[in-house]
Amino acid sequence: MADMCMSGESLLHFLEPHGKTVQDRHQSTPRPAASGTMRVGLIWVRLMTKQLRIGLAGLGTVGASLVRLLQMHGAAIGARAGRPMAITAVSARDRKRDRGIDLSGLAWFDDAVALAGSADIDCFVELIGGDEGPAREAVEAALKSGKHVVTANKALLAKHGNALAALAEENGVHLAFEASAAGGIPIVKTMREALAGNRVTRLYGILNGTCNYILSRMEAEGLSFAECLADAQRLGYAEADPTFDIEGYDTAHKLALLTSLAFGTQVDADAIYVEGISAIAPLDLKMADDLGFRIKLLGVAERTRTGIEQRVHPTMVPRDSAIAQVMGVTNAVTIDADAVGELTLIGPGAGGDATASAVLADIADVAGTPPRPPFGWPVAQMELAERAPMQRHEGGYYVRLAVYDRPGAAAGIARHMAENDISLESILQRRSEAAALDPTGRSGAPVPVVLITYATSEGAVREAIRQIAEDGLIAEDAQVIRIERE
Amino acid sequence: MADMCMSGESLLHFLEPHGKTVQDRHQSTPRPAASGTMRVGLIWVRLMTKQLRIGLAGLGTVGASLVRLLQMHGAAIGARAGRPMAITAVSARDRKRDRGIDLSGLAWFDDAVALAGSADIDCFVELIGGDEGPAREAVEAALKSGKHVVTANKALLAKHGNALAALAEENGVHLAFEASAAGGIPIVKTMREALAGNRVTRLYGILNGTCNYILSRMEAEGLSFAECLADAQRLGYAEADPTFDIEGYDTAHKLALLTSLAFGTQVDADAIYVEGISAIAPLDLKMADDLGFRIKLLGVAERTRTGIEQRVHPTMVPRDSAIAQVMGVTNAVTIDADAVGELTLIGPGAGGDATASAVLADIADVAGTPPRPPFGWPVAQMELAERAPMQRHEGGYYVRLAVYDRPGAAAGIARHMAENDISLESILQRRSEAAALDPTGRSGAPVPVVLITYATSEGAVREAIRQIAEDGLIAEDAQVIRIERE
Repeated sequence: MADMCMSGESLLHFLEPHGKTVQDRHQSTPRPAASGTMRVGLIWVRLMTKQLRIGLAGLGTVGASLVRLLQMHGAAIGARAGRPMAITAVSARDRKRDRGIDLSGLAWFDDAVALAGSADIDCFVELIGGDEGPAREAVEAALKSGKHVVTANKALLAKHGNALAALAEENGVHLAFEASAAGGIPIVKTMREALAGNRVTRLYGILNGTCNYILSRMEAEGLSFAECLADAQRLGYAEADPTFDIEGYDTAHKLALLTSLAFGTQVDADAIYVEGISAIAPLDLKMADDLGFRIKLLGVAERTRTGIEQRVHPTMVPRDSAIAQVMGVTNAVTIDADAVGELTLIGPGAGGDATASAVLADIADVAGTPPRPPFGWPVAQMELAERAPMQRHEGGYYVRLAVYDRPGAAAGIARHMAENDISLESILQRRSEAAALDPTGRSGAPVPVVLITYATSEGAVREAIRQIAEDGLIAEDAQVIRIERE
Repeated sequence: MADMCMSGESLLHFLEPHGKTVQDRHQSTPRPAASGTMRVGLIWVRLMTKQLRIGLAGLGTVGASLVRLLQMHGAAIGARAGRPMAITAVSARDRKRDRGIDLSGLAWFDDAVALAGSADIDCFVELIGGDEGPAREAVEAALKSGKHVVTANKALLAKHGNALAALAEENGVHLAFEASAAGGIPIVKTMREALAGNRVTRLYGILNGTCNYILSRMEAEGLSFAECLADAQRLGYAEADPTFDIEGYDTAHKLALLTSLAFGTQVDADAIYVEGISAIAPLDLKMADDLGFRIKLLGVAERTRTGIEQRVHPTMVPRDSAIAQVMGVTNAVTIDADAVGELTLIGPGAGGDATASAVLADIADVAGTPPRPPFGWPVAQMELAERAPMQRHEGGYYVRLAVYDRPGAAAGIARHMAENDISLESILQRRSEAAALDPTGRSGAPVPVVLITYATSEGAVREAIRQIAEDGLIAEDAQVIRIERE
């Protein structure tokens, strides 16, 4: 290998000046892709013949899997990428802890930022987590010092993705994050490369295994949300504080990244409407089933007349759709695009090995290909998307009302719906237990009534429900679940 | 752009000699990836700043879609790939035919081979079809003259894939074929890049839309194979001569390519066991449903104790599996691998725009990345896999017998199964119409009996059936369908 490296170096001796000139000449002109290309190309040519030295920060489940997998498959991956690779340095909190992996011969750094800046690595893998602190500092330090970065940190990218992508582009290095969205599913590569020739119209996915596990159990066994959450926690599918997962924030972080990949817009997590699954009742799952639907927590990004709509909420999906079959902790993403039509990817959304598999794919790209714009578009071309306000969202709705079983109630509800130009596709009424004990049916005990609307606006639905409540026709807040059709 | 090109050229003025030296020094040593890398890298650096000139041969449905999509999205794809691109020359049989696309300004070639060798293109897109003749000649001419090649031609690659991959590697150019397997599904990129860090254990897929359409209709409507085939032909889903599709050869071609991508073995289509769907009866679909299965024509590639097993045949898949939900002309591929676990991709297997989407992804890779080994592994490392003979295939089996309804028949069948060490998971007997007319049940009219076996070998099942037939217990040939579990 030595002579290769030398010739690589001597080559660069001729190259650098030219590379720089080209680079400088374009510093001023707004042509990031073209100007970066030449310099990046030269660096790439030099590096392709040298071993890729990987510095890994974070030795949790994923980090340990990555070390194991690289020790197993490293040679093969290197042969396929056309460049040898190895982890040469690691960093973690506790040096003594036994992680069941062999770290002998690897340089140890107590400080991740120091590792990120070390001249002895070419690629920094960040598996620390968190949207600030050491993770952010280390990634910035790595990019600024010309290191390629591979990260699984969705929170960091959802918050600082635009700035970090710009930093990567300025320094002509990779910023790869396949493991940050949908774990082992190659959704980033698919959006950025496989669909390069497509105009995406909509993207939706099951991006959080905890929520899908809970909803699957609730549906299959008719259990309550609380019972299933407790099981999920016992099985390690949910954190002690599950808020982040069950209220949809984790899904939102991933959606923010996928939205930019799909539409070439700047990462804008604040524009996402977020609603969790804690309010879903077994009755809703039963009603959904009766109506030919299943309820999934979806992240949806859509190009609408009013702009890019980003939303995370429980969603009714047709029971025979591919995404409705996705049960348990599995993730799935469906993309609607002009050329390919509909494409669905289903796979593990979490887990040490599955996530490490995505990190390895990124490392192979770092080793074998020149840097590309992290989100698929040169940063200079990524614009802030016009936000589509949720009130303007148009679609079908599932509305469950606890209606006082009195004469005129149905008429009142129908009238308010009509007044707001909402047409109903179907109405389903179940006899409540209270009502069942009352043969006369005149107790006025609340009975669940479900309305499925044709496409209408969120605003209209909310207004109709407000009016219905105002008339005292319902006993509790209405349950509203959006419908997403294929 | 002019000055960029010039500096690109002057750069190469310094580079070529070094590139050549490096190349030559490694000519003798068996390090294809590394030696190719340097030269390829230099060529890539020079080209990244110039427009990618595409020559397209074949203006059928896919070709016309490609022209349309590139005219629509070309600029965006170029910006994302970091290099402008455009179709500059085309070739087809009939110059006059109106294809509803604008070919003005494009050079016309009556001879595809002449286009492939033209010095005015950088990338040759082959959409002619056929495993010999102009398609093969043109692709070889393009590769030999240093052109990148993008093809959707599965037949050509299934037959000459090894030689063409070697030719591409020798000439340091791309040989991309995403559109050759599963149409718009990015399965090639997923296998070659996204799963680079995985060891694949099994791959199976619905790779032929015609067959899946026919089986879906048969199941949903209880129609015969012949009726559904006629509909498929009327709807343009099946050719006038459907043999190639319904007998499984089309699936086999695609499987041969996916097997190489999965296991790094040489393309070996002759090693594939192929069985079509023409013998599937509505009764089998009904029985499958009763037993919790669906019948799909699958292409399966698996690493077994006896070698790499490649097979195409009607298969019973669990009704709740992701692949069982795939209906109509849609395709799907599931990959089992050590790190990622199970990954499933579902999408359009055919159609002009969907196929063109895959071709466009390849073109974007050609424009933005250096050539990689076409099948994911340097040709020198691709070995001929040890074939696993079908007789040694191990798995569960569905066996439907037309049993003469006589005393002792059941006992005879059970004995022969036991003698061949086959244990039965379930037995299902349906009363035939003939038997239904015979209240005594002693007419001896044949009744369908279905046996589901636990894992056993193909050889044992065939031998047991031979013995059962020999004893005159069954009225017609047994129906044998293999079971594939998740």
